[in-house]
Amino acid sequence: MKVAWAGSRHAVEVGDRMARLVASDPVFRKDNRTMISRKELFKDTLRKAAHAWKRISELRLTEEEASLLRQYVDQPGYVDLHWGMFVPAIKGQGTEEQQKKWLPLAYRFQIIGCYAQTELGHGSNVQGLETTATFDPKTDEFVIHSPTLTSSKWWPGGLGKASTHAVVYARLITEGKDYGIHGFIVQLRSLEDHSPLPGITLGDIGGKFGSGAYNSMDNGVLRFDHVRIPRDQMLMRLSQVTREGKYVHSDVPKQLLYGTMVFVRQTIVADASKALSRAVCIAVRYSAIRKQFGSQDGGPETQVLNYRTQQSRLFPLLASAYAFRFVGDWLKWLYTDVTQKLEAKDYSTLQEAHACTAGLKAVTTSATADAIEECRKLCGGHGYLNSSGLPELFAVYVPACTYEGDNVVLLLQVARILMKAVSQLTSGKQPVGTMAYMGKVQYLMQCKCAVNAAEDWLNPVAIQEAFEARALRMVVNCAQNIGQAANQEEGFYERSPDLLEAAVAHIQLIIVTKFIEKVQQDIPGHGVKEQLQNLCNVYALYILHKHLGDFLATGCITPKQGALANELLGKLYAQVRPNAVALVDAFNYTDHYLGSVLGRYDGNVYPALYEEAWKDPLNETVVPEGYHEYLRPLLKQQLKLSRL
Amino acid sequence: MKVAWAGSRHAVEVGDRMARLVASDPVFRKDNRTMISRKELFKDTLRKAAHAWKRISELRLTEEEASLLRQYVDQPGYVDLHWGMFVPAIKGQGTEEQQKKWLPLAYRFQIIGCYAQTELGHGSNVQGLETTATFDPKTDEFVIHSPTLTSSKWWPGGLGKASTHAVVYARLITEGKDYGIHGFIVQLRSLEDHSPLPGITLGDIGGKFGSGAYNSMDNGVLRFDHVRIPRDQMLMRLSQVTREGKYVHSDVPKQLLYGTMVFVRQTIVADASKALSRAVCIAVRYSAIRKQFGSQDGGPETQVLNYRTQQSRLFPLLASAYAFRFVGDWLKWLYTDVTQKLEAKDYSTLQEAHACTAGLKAVTTSATADAIEECRKLCGGHGYLNSSGLPELFAVYVPACTYEGDNVVLLLQVARILMKAVSQLTSGKQPVGTMAYMGKVQYLMQCKCAVNAAEDWLNPVAIQEAFEARALRMVVNCAQNIGQAANQEEGFYERSPDLLEAAVAHIQLIIVTKFIEKVQQDIPGHGVKEQLQNLCNVYALYILHKHLGDFLATGCITPKQGALANELLGKLYAQVRPNAVALVDAFNYTDHYLGSVLGRYDGNVYPALYEEAWKDPLNETVVPEGYHEYLRPLLKQQLKLSRL
Repeated sequence: MKVAWAGSRHAVEVGDRMARLVASDPVFRKDNRTMISRKELFKDTLRKAAHAWKRISELRLTEEEASLLRQYVDQPGYVDLHWGMFVPAIKGQGTEEQQKKWLPLAYRFQIIGCYAQTELGHGSNVQGLETTATFDPKTDEFVIHSPTLTSSKWWPGGLGKASTHAVVYARLITEGKDYGIHGFIVQLRSLEDHSPLPGITLGDIGGKFGSGAYNSMDNGVLRFDHVRIPRDQMLMRLSQVTREGKYVHSDVPKQLLYGTMVFVRQTIVADASKALSRAVCIAVRYSAIRKQFGSQDGGPETQVLNYRTQQSRLFPLLASAYAFRFVGDWLKWLYTDVTQKLEAKDYSTLQEAHACTAGLKAVTTSATADAIEECRKLCGGHGYLNSSGLPELFAVYVPACTYEGDNVVLLLQVARILMKAVSQLTSGKQPVGTMAYMGKVQYLMQCKCAVNAAEDWLNPVAIQEAFEARALRMVVNCAQNIGQAANQEEGFYERSPDLLEAAVAHIQLIIVTKFIEKVQQDIPGHGVKEQLQNLCNVYALYILHKHLGDFLATGCITPKQGALANELLGKLYAQVRPNAVALVDAFNYTDHYLGSVLGRYDGNVYPALYEEAWKDPLNETVVPEGYHEYLRPLLKQQLKLSRL
Repeated sequence: MKVAWAGSRHAVEVGDRMARLVASDPVFRKDNRTMISRKELFKDTLRKAAHAWKRISELRLTEEEASLLRQYVDQPGYVDLHWGMFVPAIKGQGTEEQQKKWLPLAYRFQIIGCYAQTELGHGSNVQGLETTATFDPKTDEFVIHSPTLTSSKWWPGGLGKASTHAVVYARLITEGKDYGIHGFIVQLRSLEDHSPLPGITLGDIGGKFGSGAYNSMDNGVLRFDHVRIPRDQMLMRLSQVTREGKYVHSDVPKQLLYGTMVFVRQTIVADASKALSRAVCIAVRYSAIRKQFGSQDGGPETQVLNYRTQQSRLFPLLASAYAFRFVGDWLKWLYTDVTQKLEAKDYSTLQEAHACTAGLKAVTTSATADAIEECRKLCGGHGYLNSSGLPELFAVYVPACTYEGDNVVLLLQVARILMKAVSQLTSGKQPVGTMAYMGKVQYLMQCKCAVNAAEDWLNPVAIQEAFEARALRMVVNCAQNIGQAANQEEGFYERSPDLLEAAVAHIQLIIVTKFIEKVQQDIPGHGVKEQLQNLCNVYALYILHKHLGDFLATGCITPKQGALANELLGKLYAQVRPNAVALVDAFNYTDHYLGSVLGRYDGNVYPALYEEAWKDPLNETVVPEGYHEYLRPLLKQQLKLSRL
């Protein structure tokens, strides 16, 4: 199962090696992270980043190894933006010449870069950004300026304290005309003493959700007061400004940018399965340790994991972790496919690929955020302790629902593409890829589910068809309602809550489909395939039960068939139960990476919880600070005399 | 609307006065709470508690005023447990003599008490607690002992550092027999120097979810090594141990304890509406300020609050805040009613009252926890900043889902009572109170919803009947399935996930019913009643849409009727929109109490966010600590030489 989860024997081996390298290095210790101050935490991040880079150089790690090592260090920091956003932005939007100049500096960390797009007043609506870059033909320079308070760059990671450079997005103005948002490489800080350059105001935007968590990152604020940069620091792959100030498009197709977006969102889906699997691993292991109730006449109590209520909440999340993992793997393939097609100037699948990656980003991150909190609740009271690891995992994960496209905004984009696809069905244009099922509209609008007994739901064809019919009928229903509106745009707006639901149905179909496809492949290992089949069924039927209203309202299944699915689900949980711990052990996470007393591999939970408690700073003294000022006068009835 | 929310003109006035008293006092400042260390935060809590007590004494505040003042101080601390658990435990379980001895000490704060029930190994299963209290007839003392690691008291608030005394729950053993869990008053710390008494180990259990939040509370660990207390410190109202060591029951009925439970859970439901209304207030106000998209040709962008997707997520939560408020008010009445009946030794409504309070506690706290996080997401990226107030509100609220009965455990108790009620239907025993509708079983099992047009859903009779039919059919369905099992207990266990859903349906019916009853009363104020009617319909139809599968699967409504409800919901949102800000202003919260830059009453959000950022400790220096050690060597390619 380890191989099935990791993707290959090689992946297991290298992941294992890097995880142990990090876990055994005292510099990468993270168990005190929630107890230290913001300043100490940030300094610790700088230390870890430098140490990681040192180790990567010393051991001459490959790119794959280095990236895994950074993952297992597991502490957000400027390095993430440098490698994940700054370098790709230059690669994707810079000319060859620009790449030749800037990439080697970035690769050697002679400069540290970040990605300054979001502003105080604008996030999702990129076209509404207010920062200006006005070309001055007299000096051959752009003047970067923040004309309003709300135009302050706000949120970029690594900006607040660490970065020396940024790719800054601003409205390009030349010859008195506004050409919209473009990227510019801007130096922010002196390479000699790290002080901000003239005209530049820089700072951290303040504390964020949770202890530890994203507070290791210096999300920053940045204001420009007429800062000048050479013309050639505009990223010019797609369009240029000439020496004379003329704005010209290059012949590089704009669609190339979509490739980057597919890539970034694919990594977000992969991260969702990582975060979810960590939470599930903690909750499953602790549920196997924790006992409560069920003792008859003083006999032993029952493991919490044996309770049907615990199983019905936890096993769908275990199945979701695997589902997201496999759909993430498939997205990697999609990225390669899209890239090849783009290079061949074939844009036919681009919209479909965009809908599918945007939607998968939205659905998997929302589900993961909710699931981490559910796992925390499934650990009872102790899940509320920082030493359980779950509070920090939640706090550090939830921004994924907002960054790289707010999930609601993304789902509305998916819905728009779905509406377009429906409208083209009549014109005979066949939908492709993950939307191909829409071509079966005649059949899917009137098909009847053939399930007669609970076990009939084990048939992947029945599941697949029910999910296809549900998604398509919801999509068509929205399209019909919008069609009746006087104004299509107004109709889209009025129906947007329904459109969100239809988009989710379409995306859930994709996840179910890819899971079914996965378990139909050859999967080595004794019993591995059977267990994955179980999880696939759990995932699909759990979604069916959760969204039963959709399936019934669209007439895809009958109430009786819904009840049969629910009945089967109970039986599947019973089959997952004996393998549950093995299924989370397959994630192969070190105790260091999990960072949870409740999720310890050795199960030695209670002594560890007890020991952990005494490390809290409050326990440094037996009698707390403040006793003499605030407790003793109260107890001695001398409060009125004391000065507080 | 302020009066409708607060309950009376008097409540508005006194609440307003106390809120302003707190807000204007610099000692009660809380805007830096997420930035300070655990030790500073705890010391600050001690300071605030002492200052609050001083102000209460100086101003000779009434009990009502004092309790409101503590609420507006809004910082968890030992005082909550002293007044909320220690004092009520002695009142409820102590003899008159014991009350006479201990209550005056507690009332004057000559002792500080907490409530030591939960242990490291046992929370929900109180009967599984391991601490022992063995009677020693030789010395007329109880010996309190922690026989195992897992028997350590763990979680009690105020225990870690502040309390001098505790009500400790332990297995009473006398004459060699274990009589189960009883309460004992135990002194923990010296009243002279606050050091733990001999044989007692005390400490804080460590950091918890979030910054600030519950970290102001010293949740504690406590171990006993054969600690002796006089026999008369056993709480003896319900049972006693005689001088000779004989265990005897008093004639006080055990049912009296339920009264306390109803009281405590009623306050939890009231707190749910408070927490939810704070989150909703922040999200509604900021959604009216924030603009994004929708500009045509450079025109102004649209307020986020105008988006249907925002409304469909936010307005149901606004309606829920009002729904929980009114059902909470009704629970206050129920508490009085139960108390009167108990005094008259009438136990006929006790089970029903227990089901209803336990279930309302579970449903309102779970919904509120989810809703706070949803409100945070509805504020976009900025909701992730501590200065938004939402991360702390979430972190401080979520334990409500676990304490005073884990929500799943409580819902299963509700389900058990529902199953019993169903089984008694045939024997002709009429269900009472909130279960009275089950008496209409013949009708509700076969009735058909008469809705033909969207507006028909405005009829409260249609809503009420649909909710009654849904709950009853789910309950009866569970009962039938359990009835088919060979073993009833096994059947209950197998069907427990379905039982949870049935219990939720029953409780949602209660909330809807109490909201409908409320808006059928005379409500003064221009247009107030109409707006509350709107919110009542929003709440009911939102629940109907969210749980559409239940309504359709049980055949209570048709898919067409479900679609009509959804259509009406869209129209209701449009009617709520113009009043949304007024509806949250009616909560009458000060900026101090809200504690949110995004929720400011004056709407001056962006300058305040910007200003707030600079207060972060990371911004104390322009060049961050760690630059010379970890950033400069990296940038200067001198990392290999440097020692990290």
